[in-house]
Amino acid sequence: MTTYGFLGLGIMGSAMARNLVQAGFDVIVWNRSAEKSEPLVATGARLGATPRDVVAASEVTFSMVADPIATRSVCFDTYGVLAGVGPGHDYVETSTIDDPTSVEIARAVADLGGRFLEAPVTGTKKPAEDGQLVFLAAGDRGLFDDAQPAFDAMGKLAVYLGEVGNGARMKLVINSIMGGVMAALAEGLALAEKGGLEPATVLELLDAGVVANQLFRAKGPQLLERSYPASFPLKHMQKDLRLALALGESVGQPLHGTATVNQTFKRAVVAGRGDEDFSAVYEVIR
Amino acid sequence: MTTYGFLGLGIMGSAMARNLVQAGFDVIVWNRSAEKSEPLVATGARLGATPRDVVAASEVTFSMVADPIATRSVCFDTYGVLAGVGPGHDYVETSTIDDPTSVEIARAVADLGGRFLEAPVTGTKKPAEDGQLVFLAAGDRGLFDDAQPAFDAMGKLAVYLGEVGNGARMKLVINSIMGGVMAALAEGLALAEKGGLEPATVLELLDAGVVANQLFRAKGPQLLERSYPASFPLKHMQKDLRLALALGESVGQPLHGTATVNQTFKRAVVAGRGDEDFSAVYEVIR
Amino acid sequence: MTTYGFLGLGIMGSAMARNLVQAGFDVIVWNRSAEKSEPLVATGARLGATPRDVVAASEVTFSMVADPIATRSVCFDTYGVLAGVGPGHDYVETSTIDDPTSVEIARAVADLGGRFLEAPVTGTKKPAEDGQLVFLAAGDRGLFDDAQPAFDAMGKLAVYLGEVGNGARMKLVINSIMGGVMAALAEGLALAEKGGLEPATVLELLDAGVVANQLFRAKGPQLLERSYPASFPLKHMQKDLRLALALGESVGQPLHGTATVNQTFKRAVVAGRGDEDFSAVYEVIR
Amino acid sequence: MTTYGFLGLGIMGSAMARNLVQAGFDVIVWNRSAEKSEPLVATGARLGATPRDVVAASEVTFSMVADPIATRSVCFDTYGVLAGVGPGHDYVETSTIDDPTSVEIARAVADLGGRFLEAPVTGTKKPAEDGQLVFLAAGDRGLFDDAQPAFDAMGKLAVYLGEVGNGARMKLVINSIMGGVMAALAEGLALAEKGGLEPATVLELLDAGVVANQLFRAKGPQLLERSYPASFPLKHMQKDLRLALALGESVGQPLHGTATVNQTFKRAVVAGRGDEDFSAVYEVIR
Repeated sequence: MTTYGFLGLGIMGSAMARNLVQAGFDVIVWNRSAEKSEPLVATGARLGATPRDVVAASEVTFSMVADPIATRSVCFDTYGVLAGVGPGHDYVETSTIDDPTSVEIARAVADLGGRFLEAPVTGTKKPAEDGQLVFLAAGDRGLFDDAQPAFDAMGKLAVYLGEVGNGARMKLVINSIMGGVMAALAEGLALAEKGGLEPATVLELLDAGVVANQLFRAKGPQLLERSYPASFPLKHMQKDLRLALALGESVGQPLHGTATVNQTFKRAVVAGRGDEDFSAVYEVIR
Repeated sequence: MTTYGFLGLGIMGSAMARNLVQAGFDVIVWNRSAEKSEPLVATGARLGATPRDVVAASEVTFSMVADPIATRSVCFDTYGVLAGVGPGHDYVETSTIDDPTSVEIARAVADLGGRFLEAPVTGTKKPAEDGQLVFLAAGDRGLFDDAQPAFDAMGKLAVYLGEVGNGARMKLVINSIMGGVMAALAEGLALAEKGGLEPATVLELLDAGVVANQLFRAKGPQLLERSYPASFPLKHMQKDLRLALALGESVGQPLHGTATVNQTFKRAVVAGRGDEDFSAVYEVIR
Repeated sequence: MTTYGFLGLGIMGSAMARNLVQAGFDVIVWNRSAEKSEPLVATGARLGATPRDVVAASEVTFSMVADPIATRSVCFDTYGVLAGVGPGHDYVETSTIDDPTSVEIARAVADLGGRFLEAPVTGTKKPAEDGQLVFLAAGDRGLFDDAQPAFDAMGKLAVYLGEVGNGARMKLVINSIMGGVMAALAEGLALAEKGGLEPATVLELLDAGVVANQLFRAKGPQLLERSYPASFPLKHMQKDLRLALALGESVGQPLHGTATVNQTFKRAVVAGRGDEDFSAVYEVIR
Repeated sequence: MTTYGFLGLGIMGSAMARNLVQAGFDVIVWNRSAEKSEPLVATGARLGATPRDVVAASEVTFSMVADPIATRSVCFDTYGVLAGVGPGHDYVETSTIDDPTSVEIARAVADLGGRFLEAPVTGTKKPAEDGQLVFLAAGDRGLFDDAQPAFDAMGKLAVYLGEVGNGARMKLVINSIMGGVMAALAEGLALAEKGGLEPATVLELLDAGVVANQLFRAKGPQLLERSYPASFPLKHMQKDLRLALALGESVGQPLHGTATVNQTFKRAVVAGRGDEDFSAVYEVIR
């Protein structure tokens, strides 16, 4: 039976690790504050003392931590990932990290004889719990194939995107489209409202047409109620739009629409909406 | 059994009239060039000599013609709709017409004791054939209720939107959102392509996420193949965006995103893409 | 000595007529409310009873009234311009009017054997008083040449632009550039202010560089003081931007920048800034 | 008599140094390739062997080199500026350099007891030759005051902007306004041309109005002739627009207009216009 390691047991990580356990794998977990490991251990996971120990005892170790700083710590600290990685002890980073960090870790892992994948996910808490995440994997192709059983347990789709960095880039592309779709909805609803049409009817009609989608179904009512509990914080969407534009700059792709959408989201950040859901962009449009 | 009239037997109208016949209603049809009536008559419809005759012999008459000029002719000509309309002989205009024309016809019908609805549709040939149209009805509420069996036979949804003009306005709102959604997809795919990512994978990932929708499934492959057979001509989308912006001007709703998207579609029209599908906007973005 | 007629003695018209008088011409004036004629008569102008009388007694009659509705009344009323126009009795409309109205008057004047020019002006009260207006003339070339002495008395430049309609179109082009220039200043100053730079220094530096211009010198301090006494009301600028975009639509010229600037001015109108100077666009940018 | 050092004798630097010589100062020059020093020496300048020697022998040394890499070399090399700087031996960097580099040099100079100013210039070859540059100075206030005679010899204006970094930031603000002004002209001229108006007349009218400026006079004819000899390369303007937007991001200033203008310039870069003058943006608008 394959042994998987899992580092980082926050909202996302604990849901992902639990799905590995429930799929019947041998799972060793670690979290900076140890008490978060208890529920996992209660369901059958084993406890690792340090990232190094987890990696050394596992065939493939997954990590899901808060940000690139946490990733660096988990990897490069004395008892970190790199102290355990090597032939037969591979590493998959599912946090979203920046390109240089990703490349640096990839090289370090390869130098030690291990294999590396970056595999940022799309989807938030609910899909993580339901095993419905989507993995944007890039790096070692062989590891991608070998880790498929784990991806299957945690998600509904894992795609292989080529060289390290492509996972993060793909996420920017997907999120910039999502931002544009949201902005289109927000402007349309604002126009309907000002024009004396019933916004709820707009939602009903959209849902009966070719652009019907879950995002409209989930966020549309938030716009009508003007209440935006954060599922994907607006400031993160604006950051991704900014980074997508930076990618466009670097590869020579003009993006008139995305640039405009970014400024509108930026206006929402400045208006103090950054910590609300990205659907709160409606507040600076209407 | 209710008798319905149907004026205009083009691609849309003949499909709609056929669904009325197949639902078991007594249907009287008319078309400017008479030979187009033959297939309908072969399936059980009766033939009317003029719009006046159709209206006079029917409880409710529907019209689906090419443009506002055709609508005016069908209504105001000597043997037109208005010569037959009156108490018990109502009229539903399902073509998309401009506000002043709609209001003018509404008044004329009311003066003669009949009832009037504008009820433009969303959906094209296939939904018309499958009885899956959506009707955006505005005008006489009683007629809306009474005509429900006919709407049920021809469509999957009919919504009542209030005063005459709201049907056309709602269509602009829906189409402007659709234009924004398409532009978001086109910019995202262009960015992916320039950035060394596989556009087909972008489509696959979108379809696994919360913005998955029929439009992306239908148009995405067109963008990858760079072939845009017209389902909804780009020039019509640009016209609707322009009119949505004009509505925004008149009701005091700024629309930064829609204005930008409109200019991009305008650029596509100027580049000679007006008669291709509106997905051809990709050609001026990539 | 040439006899000139002048219809409309508001702020602009009275200044223009006065300059004709002071240049030594024989001037006959008329205004809807007669008391506004008195100061002109006191300086040597003669009083006409009706537009018809003024036109019939003058070689060339100029009109400067509030809007197209006033223009139509002055021209088409029973004792209006058209009742006096004919060979040797020509007409120059210096108000800004829409294309169809201009064409209609041009035809009517020509049918009666007179000659017609539309000649909207750029410049407001001060340039009118100082004889520094610019005339954007279109229509009869011979009349343009013959009226040169009058243009010289009232302005610093009169250009001939060809067929009727080109005067109004040229004004839209000029004003849309002016709107874009103002928006560029406003965004730059806002960026400076947020970025910890002294906005007054930005103005000083601009004035020492290649884009130094009177508009920046006049409006820049207004932005710093956040006080916008109306010289050219913002709502009129937004209307001209909208019409310039409509011209772009009709002639096939995409205008991404102008469309964005228009939406920003629109936002200022919606925010209640329409009656302030167009420099008040700063308030929705900063 | 004050002794000034000057490092970097390219097109800009040699003109600036010559103006110092002609103003009667004792000037010591240095250039990487020594032959460029000869014309200066012929007019009375002395030759320094290394940047260190120049700085050690001068009260204030100015530098004008190609890019931040050249600046770093001139400063940090073994025989560089820092080897000569100290009390009574100050340094003014007039090249445009990035913030971190500027801050790093400022600290190093201060640690050695010298004083530092960043003082990027606006203006190109001709203003440099004519002593009409504008200096955007930031850093040590005392040095700014003491160097005034040199600024007077080389430019028409030097402003003090506060802490190091503000010089570069101010330049971005000024250039982003200039980019917006150019884009407004380009869209207006394109609209005129498509609309059947004479673009040359637009230029004539602009020059008679309140937005009349040198940039329009210089670049307008280039647009009409569609020839854009590089004075300020388009790719540099686009870079400055991008950096101005990045500044807007970091200080929380949304910039809808600038973002749109940037994308249009970006489109011009992608279309291969990056090395032409920034007025070549007209080619992707018309």
